Amino acid sequence: MSRLNVFVQARLKLRDWRLRLGLRRARRAGVVIGDGCHFAGLPEFGSEPYLISLGRDVTVAPGVVMITHDGGIAVIHTLDPERYGKVHKFGRIDIRDNCHIGTGAIILPGVTIGPDCVIAAGSVVTRSIPPGVLAAGNPAKPVMTVQQYAEWSLAATPDIDEAEYRRDPKAYLMRTPLRGSVPRQFHQNDRSGTSV
Amino acid sequence: MSRLNVFVQARLKLRDWRLRLGLRRARRAGVVIGDGCHFAGLPEFGSEPYLISLGRDVTVAPGVVMITHDGGIAVIHTLDPERYGKVHKFGRIDIRDNCHIGTGAIILPGVTIGPDCVIAAGSVVTRSIPPGVLAAGNPAKPVMTVQQYAEWSLAATPDIDEAEYRRDPKAYLMRTPLRGSVPRQFHQNDRSGTSV
Amino acid sequence: MSRLNVFVQARLKLRDWRLRLGLRRARRAGVVIGDGCHFAGLPEFGSEPYLISLGRDVTVAPGVVMITHDGGIAVIHTLDPERYGKVHKFGRIDIRDNCHIGTGAIILPGVTIGPDCVIAAGSVVTRSIPPGVLAAGNPAKPVMTVQQYAEWSLAATPDIDEAEYRRDPKAYLMRTPLRGSVPRQFHQNDRSGTSV
Repeated sequence: MSRLNVFVQARLKLRDWRLRLGLRRARRAGVVIGDGCHFAGLPEFGSEPYLISLGRDVTVAPGVVMITHDGGIAVIHTLDPERYGKVHKFGRIDIRDNCHIGTGAIILPGVTIGPDCVIAAGSVVTRSIPPGVLAAGNPAKPVMTVQQYAEWSLAATPDIDEAEYRRDPKAYLMRTPLRGSVPRQFHQNDRSGTSV
Repeated sequence: MSRLNVFVQARLKLRDWRLRLGLRRARRAGVVIGDGCHFAGLPEFGSEPYLISLGRDVTVAPGVVMITHDGGIAVIHTLDPERYGKVHKFGRIDIRDNCHIGTGAIILPGVTIGPDCVIAAGSVVTRSIPPGVLAAGNPAKPVMTVQQYAEWSLAATPDIDEAEYRRDPKAYLMRTPLRGSVPRQFHQNDRSGTSV
Repeated sequence: MSRLNVFVQARLKLRDWRLRLGLRRARRAGVVIGDGCHFAGLPEFGSEPYLISLGRDVTVAPGVVMITHDGGIAVIHTLDPERYGKVHKFGRIDIRDNCHIGTGAIILPGVTIGPDCVIAAGSVVTRSIPPGVLAAGNPAKPVMTVQQYAEWSLAATPDIDEAEYRRDPKAYLMRTPLRGSVPRQFHQNDRSGTSV
C-alpha cells in the first residue's frame, strides 16, 4: 500500500468510527433505531432525540436533519408574551420500516414516514408521508408509488455483468452506458441523462 | 458525573465556545447583531459580512447561509467580457426585529425580512419577506400571517404541567401526547402527526 | 499585523490548503475538472467520483453535493428481493463549460448541465438543464435565459468607481447604494431590496 493510501484508509476509519460513536450517543440520548438500519452519514437528531424513532431497514443518506420542535414560536413569545408565552410545540418523528431518507432531507416535527417510502434528496418533509410512496420537493409531496418507482428502476437497469462489476466497480461503471437518473413520473419520455 | 458525561460536557462547552468565537469574529467583520439575538448554530455570513444586519430578538437555527453577492455573474463575465465584464452584484441582507430563521435556510442578496417573521426550515429566501408573515418554500413565499400561526400554535399546545416539564423535560415529553407539527394553513383538517 | 490577524490568516490558509487537498484527492479518484474552474468550497463528489466531469470555467459555490447513484433502491431491494434485487441505478453528472453552481445545490444522477448555465443557490437539480439558462428551485427548472439574466444584471449594476472599490471593497460597498438582488424574471417591477 502506498503512503498515500495509508492516509486515505486512516481517514475512512476515522469517519466510520465517528459515525458509530455518533449513533451510539444518539441511541443513548433516546433515538430508537431498528435492526438493519444503515447510515451513510450521521443525521442531526436535534434537541429532543428521544422523540425520534426509526423502524427496521431504514437507510439514511448524509446530511439529513430531523427537527422535533418548532423554533418559530420564539417570534410569538416576543410578540405577545401574555397570550402566547406558554405556547410550546414539540412533535415526534416516526420513520417506519424500510424507508430511505435522501441526502440533505429535512424532516419536521410531527411527521410520520412510511413504511416503504423513498424521500428524495433535498426534500423538506413538513407533513406525514403515507406508506409506499416516493416523495420529493419543498414541501415534500408524494410523486409516485414505490411500485411505480420500482418498475421504472427495473426498466432503467441495464444488463450488467455482476461478476465483472464486483471485480472492479470503478472500471466497470466508467465504461458502461448508464441510464440511471432521478425518479420521476413513470411513463415519461424525457429521460434526461448523459448516456445511451 | 460519569466519565462519559465529562466528554459530553466538554463537547458541549467546545461547541458553545466555537459559536461565541464565530459570532465575535462575525461582528468584528461587520455583521450588525442587535440585542437579544439567539443563535443555535453559527450562520455562514459569506464574503461580505459587513452587508448583513440583524435586528433585536432574532433567533437563528443551525445551518443558515446568508449570501450577499451573486456568484452567477462569473458566467456572463466569461460569456461576453466586453459587455458584461464590469457587472457586479452585491446586495444587503437586513433581518429586522423579532424574526426566526429556520434550520438550513438560505438567504440571498438584497433581501429584507420582517420584522416579526418566521422563515421555515429549508427555505430559500430570494426576495424580501413583508412584516408579520410565516414564509416557506423554494423560493420562499408567505404562507400565513404570524397572527394565524400564533393562534394555530396556541390551539395546538396541549395542557402541560409546567412544573413537571421543567423538572425533567425528557421524561415529560416522552409520555405526553404531542400535537406539534409544522405550521401550515390555518383551519386545515389533516393535521398529520404521530400522536393525539 | 496584530496577534488576532495572525490567527485569521492561519485559518484562511488552512482552509485553502484543505480545499486544494480535497480537489487533488477528487481528481485522483476520477473527477474530471477542466481548466479555469474555481471552487469556493469543496463539493461532495459522492461515492462514484469517476462518474463526474466538469468542463472549463465552472465556478462552484460552497456546500454543493453531487450524487451519482440512487440510494432509494434499497427500499425496493428489501420489498421484493427476487424481482428487484438486481436493480442498480448509477448516473453520470456532466457539468459543461462556463457554468455556475450556487450555494448548497444538490445535483442528482444522470444530469447534464450547460454549457453557460447558472444554477441558483439551494436548487435540487433532478434533470438535465439545457444550455444557456438560469435554473432554480426544487426541482430546479429554467427560470430565464442567461441572456436575460445578463441584461438584467447589467441594468442593476450601479455606476461604481472601480479604482475606489479596489482600494477598499468593504468601505466602498458599505457606503454605496446596492441594487443587487437575486435573479428573477426580467422586466419585473417588484425589485425588492434594502436599498434604492
